[in-house]
Amino acid sequence: MTTSGEKAATKVVLLLIRRMEASFHAALRQRFHVLDFFASGEPLPAFLAAAAAAPEAPRAAIVMGADPARVDTAFLDAVPSLRCVVSLAVGVDFIDLDECARRGVVVANSGRVFSTDVADHAVGMLIDVLRRVSAAERFVRRGLWPLQGDYPLGSKLGGRRVGIVGLGNIGSLLAKRLEAFGCIVYYNSRRPKDSVSYRYFPNVYDLAAECDVLVVACALNKATRHIVDKDVLEALGKDGIIINIGRGANIDEAALVRALKEGRIAGAGLDVFENEPNVPRELLSMGNVVMTPHVAVFTSESMSDHLRDHTIGNLEAFFSGKPLLTPVLPQ
Amino acid sequence: MTTSGEKAATKVVLLLIRRMEASFHAALRQRFHVLDFFASGEPLPAFLAAAAAAPEAPRAAIVMGADPARVDTAFLDAVPSLRCVVSLAVGVDFIDLDECARRGVVVANSGRVFSTDVADHAVGMLIDVLRRVSAAERFVRRGLWPLQGDYPLGSKLGGRRVGIVGLGNIGSLLAKRLEAFGCIVYYNSRRPKDSVSYRYFPNVYDLAAECDVLVVACALNKATRHIVDKDVLEALGKDGIIINIGRGANIDEAALVRALKEGRIAGAGLDVFENEPNVPRELLSMGNVVMTPHVAVFTSESMSDHLRDHTIGNLEAFFSGKPLLTPVLPQ
Repeated sequence: MTTSGEKAATKVVLLLIRRMEASFHAALRQRFHVLDFFASGEPLPAFLAAAAAAPEAPRAAIVMGADPARVDTAFLDAVPSLRCVVSLAVGVDFIDLDECARRGVVVANSGRVFSTDVADHAVGMLIDVLRRVSAAERFVRRGLWPLQGDYPLGSKLGGRRVGIVGLGNIGSLLAKRLEAFGCIVYYNSRRPKDSVSYRYFPNVYDLAAECDVLVVACALNKATRHIVDKDVLEALGKDGIIINIGRGANIDEAALVRALKEGRIAGAGLDVFENEPNVPRELLSMGNVVMTPHVAVFTSESMSDHLRDHTIGNLEAFFSGKPLLTPVLPQ
Repeated sequence: MTTSGEKAATKVVLLLIRRMEASFHAALRQRFHVLDFFASGEPLPAFLAAAAAAPEAPRAAIVMGADPARVDTAFLDAVPSLRCVVSLAVGVDFIDLDECARRGVVVANSGRVFSTDVADHAVGMLIDVLRRVSAAERFVRRGLWPLQGDYPLGSKLGGRRVGIVGLGNIGSLLAKRLEAFGCIVYYNSRRPKDSVSYRYFPNVYDLAAECDVLVVACALNKATRHIVDKDVLEALGKDGIIINIGRGANIDEAALVRALKEGRIAGAGLDVFENEPNVPRELLSMGNVVMTPHVAVFTSESMSDHLRDHTIGNLEAFFSGKPLLTPVLPQ
């Protein structure tokens, strides 16, 4: 790590398309000449046009997986000098990877920084759905305990067969946690992993048919869009529970809502939705659904220290001509 | 296990002071002549007097840790034939053990039947408090996500120093689960356990001072009443979190409410309260508190199969003159 003084003479330009906490922002400013979209107050096209026209054209950008930060053809056309995109998210479904590859733009994601937080949140949501924590919470807060007496029993976690869709960093950390609770872990992924002894299912339908709980922990791409559809939900069955900490569009949300309404699955824990921040209205009154607003991935600790160091590490690698720490492109 | 036919001739009388699900009730009736307090519709003294006056006096009772089932001098005086009390709870703080010992009444509890469920629920509540699951749930259900945008970040579980007060069955299962999340486990109990390598603290104050999270998982008795008091909460400090899956009176509830109101601790997950089913009114509006209505111990699975077999096993042992499966008295 070089000092601020040494860097001052050679500060390179960085596009920042993400609201950032103060210490992270300061750490970036110390190393780079930061062009901050949210601070500019301009619409994205105007901001990008001004950035592209600056004396030193920006070669790198930090982006986050939420509007207006879609890195698509229009974005890349607007800043043709761009050669590196660092995503603060794990998923990069909002980045047009084909287009980046064609133009020689390298892409990094946040790697394992957030994986443990996502795995922890998934376990928390599963316990919540099974043991009815949020629902029991509402019961207590509404003052119903003294009026209605005992709250209905929840269900046991131990012994459950939990099928994990996508055994990457997050899925593996989740499996380790579930084992400590006495769950039986199965999984589906593109191919079986040599490093684990969990039972592998080459397709999600068969996995769902053998499981009590299905956890979606895969990336979103063409192959995994609506990987959980009507038929998979049917296979999971009326006592089945689904947890989604991947992306909303990994599940056919309309089919999920129907299955929940009709009692064809038992419950759901959802951190992500197809049309965020909009949540299907029917879910809002269901007692067997736990919903969080896409927060599985974030904690203040991961967001500050770990992510800051990791993001700056990726950028410094790029600007030094070294391989990215967590490359998505080139693979 | 003998058949119903063999038993019919020799059915012994059993007092049942607990509402019971149908299959459990049927299993008891098959084996015993059940005198059911809740079915009688009588006040407890009248019910006990009638039971004591029956042709065959009851020698055993099934009780649960909630009013009106306090097994005190008045209860024991009313049914002097009683020689065995089987509690459906783990804790037996509602049974006067000194008085039972003096009269030669043996006492059994539910042993390990519920321990895993309690440990699971404790982990769920800890994740909930740290990651703000219930609070984020309310945010989503109220439709605030599209209006207010990103929800405030929660905190990471990994690396937390978690102090467990009482490393019995529940505490040990909890420790195993927390290790899988990368937590550092410390504990306090009457004496250090040879079987574990966690750091031992001979008193709760010192434990609290070294911890980020304090989990109360001990029995309630004279030594542990208000074991978490004002000073322990002060030692835990303003970033500290407390979880209680023991008994309400293990914590000085008034001191806890004050500490939460004044921001002298960061949050709490409470399944038990000093004056159940009444919850301190101040807690009901706090966003950093997760409250469940004394449900950690129950799941439908533990309540039906496991507990039924276990309870009947204790009673059959008593009536056959064998040692109880899970004796509290004699120790």
